[in-house]
Amino acid sequence: MKKLINGVDDVLAESLAGFAAAHPGVRVDAEHRVVYRAEPKPHGTVGILSGGGSGHEPLHAGYVGFGMLDAAVAGEIFTSPTPDQILAATAEIDTGAGVLHIVKNYTGDIMNFEMATELGTSAIETVIIADDVAVEDSTFTAGRRGTGLTVLVEKIAGAAAEQGWELAEVAALARRVASSGRSMGVALTSSTVPASGRPTFDLPESEMEVGVGIHGEPGRRRVPLGSAAEIAGMLVEPILADYEFSSGPTIVMLNGMGATPLIELYLMFGEVKKLLDLAGIRVARSLVGNYVTSLDMAGCSVTILAADDELLRLWDAPVNTPALRWGI
Amino acid sequence: MKKLINGVDDVLAESLAGFAAAHPGVRVDAEHRVVYRAEPKPHGTVGILSGGGSGHEPLHAGYVGFGMLDAAVAGEIFTSPTPDQILAATAEIDTGAGVLHIVKNYTGDIMNFEMATELGTSAIETVIIADDVAVEDSTFTAGRRGTGLTVLVEKIAGAAAEQGWELAEVAALARRVASSGRSMGVALTSSTVPASGRPTFDLPESEMEVGVGIHGEPGRRRVPLGSAAEIAGMLVEPILADYEFSSGPTIVMLNGMGATPLIELYLMFGEVKKLLDLAGIRVARSLVGNYVTSLDMAGCSVTILAADDELLRLWDAPVNTPALRWGI
Repeated sequence: MKKLINGVDDVLAESLAGFAAAHPGVRVDAEHRVVYRAEPKPHGTVGILSGGGSGHEPLHAGYVGFGMLDAAVAGEIFTSPTPDQILAATAEIDTGAGVLHIVKNYTGDIMNFEMATELGTSAIETVIIADDVAVEDSTFTAGRRGTGLTVLVEKIAGAAAEQGWELAEVAALARRVASSGRSMGVALTSSTVPASGRPTFDLPESEMEVGVGIHGEPGRRRVPLGSAAEIAGMLVEPILADYEFSSGPTIVMLNGMGATPLIELYLMFGEVKKLLDLAGIRVARSLVGNYVTSLDMAGCSVTILAADDELLRLWDAPVNTPALRWGI
Repeated sequence: MKKLINGVDDVLAESLAGFAAAHPGVRVDAEHRVVYRAEPKPHGTVGILSGGGSGHEPLHAGYVGFGMLDAAVAGEIFTSPTPDQILAATAEIDTGAGVLHIVKNYTGDIMNFEMATELGTSAIETVIIADDVAVEDSTFTAGRRGTGLTVLVEKIAGAAAEQGWELAEVAALARRVASSGRSMGVALTSSTVPASGRPTFDLPESEMEVGVGIHGEPGRRRVPLGSAAEIAGMLVEPILADYEFSSGPTIVMLNGMGATPLIELYLMFGEVKKLLDLAGIRVARSLVGNYVTSLDMAGCSVTILAADDELLRLWDAPVNTPALRWGI
C-alpha cells in the first residue's frame, strides 16, 4: 500500500486538520469531525447538512460554504458517521428555520441520521439520494446506492436555502432533484482502505467492474477492459434505459473515482457527450473532475440530471466552497 | 495499462475535444491544438501564452480564461509543442500590445518557443520557469526543471495583463515571480505514457522517488517509503535550503501528481504547514489539489512562493478558467 499518510488510524483526523489549514472559509470541530462554514448563515435561514463515510473527497466537506452546505459530518473511511456527530452538527446549524439532511442511501447512514433526528429538537427534513442505476440492493444498501447526484442535490438545495426558501420548500426541491437524476460508474482498479492495507476487491489487469459502487461494492458485471467509447455506452445506456429524459436541459457530471487523471476524464466526457447528442439529450451544464471519489480507485462515473429553468438558475447561483466556486 | 482511452494515438485530440465540449468559455483549434478564450481580451492588452507537453492537466489548457491565459498550446504527451503551433497561437492573441510566453525549462520547449519568436512578427517577451530544486540538469533539461510554480506565474501575470499592464511590465513581474518561488516533488508510482503502454520507470512497492520530475525524470534519490511527515520534510527542507524566505507572506501549493486522492493531499498539506509554521514562514494563500500532474503518477509536489502585497493582490484578482475560478 503506497499512500501519503502517517498512521492508518490517523488519516481522517490529519486530513481534516490539513483541510482546515488550507481553507480559511471553514472551521473544523475536531472532536465531532464536523466541518462548518466559518461564517454561519443568517438567523432564520434553513440549514443544510450532509455527511457520510470519508474517502469520497471532496464529498462532503469540500462543499461546505456559501450557497451549498452549512456543515458536513465525516465518518471514518467508508463508515457512517455516528448519531452524536449528526446531532451536534444539526443543533449547531439550526438558526430557527430547521435543517435539511442530505443522506446517501446506505443502511448505516440512513439509520444514524434517523436516530439523530429522533434524539434532537430541531425541525428536520431528510432527502435520500439513491441515484445509482447499477444494482438494487448491495453490500451496504437496501435499494439503490447514493452516489454522484449527491453533489447536484447539495448545490441546488444549498442555493435555495441561501435565497431564503422555507424548510418544506427546500426539502421538496431536493426530493425533486433526487428523483430526476441517475448515475452509473465503472472501476478499472480497486481502492485500498488504509486500515486494511489491501485492495478491497481483486480486478485482473485485463478487466473492469461495470456498475461499481463508491466503496468498491460489486457492480453489474465484470468484463474485459473496453475502449472509452465502449465504456461510455456501458454507463450512459443503463441511465437512459432507466429514466425518460425529455428534450429539456440536463446537467451532466463526469466524475473521476480518485486515481484517474483529468486527460482521461475529459476524453470520457467527450464520448458521453457524443452519445447524449445522438440520443437528443441537451447538455446545458457540465462538471468534469473528481467530485465523488473512492480513495485511490481508477475509474469514473456519469451522472445525468433532468433540469429545467428553475434548477438551472439555482445551479448557476453563486457558490463559494473549497471544491465548487463560481459567481463570487 | 488501464486507461479510459480509445486508440493510444488519439488521446490528446479526443481529450481536447471533450475539454471544448465541457467548457463553453474556451474554443479549441483542433488543427494546431491550441485552446483559446472564447471571448478574446480587448484590443491593446498584452496576450499571455503558455504551453508544453500534454499529460500535466489541468496545465495548461485548464488555465485559459479571464484573468489568466489567452491561449495554451498542447504538445503531444510529454512532448514539446512545435514552432508552428506556437506561432499560430501567438499571432492569434496579439491584439497589438505584444505577447508574453510562459515556458517551462525543458530543452525542446525553450527551442521551439524561441524559434516561433524568431519566425513571427509579434513583440514577444519570454519568462522561463525553472523552480524545481531537486536537480541541476535532467533527462530533458539543462538547468533546473519547470514545474508547479508555472501555475502561480500564469495566474499573477494573467491578472496584470487583464489590468492593462504593458508587455515589459508584465514580463518583469512574471520574472520576479519565477525567481521568488521553488518546488520539489515525490513519486510513489510511475506514470504510464499511453503510446508506451508501460510505466516510465520501475519503482518497487516499498520505495519512492524523491525529487521526481513531472515526466518521471529521476530525482535526488530513491528511498524507502516514508510517512507523510517524513515526506513533507524531504520536500520542504530542500526548498528552504535553496531560498531565503523572509517573514513576509507566501503562497503555497500542495499539488497532486494525478493519481493521489484529495484525502492524502490535504493530509500532506497539514504536514507541510506544520513545518512552515516551525520555520516561521507565513502561509497567506494556499492551493491543494491536482494542478500540475504527471498522467497517472501517484505522489505530490510542494511549491512555495515568496509573495508581497502586490503579488497577493494579483493572486486574489478575479479569475475564471476551467481549473481556477474565484472573484467572478
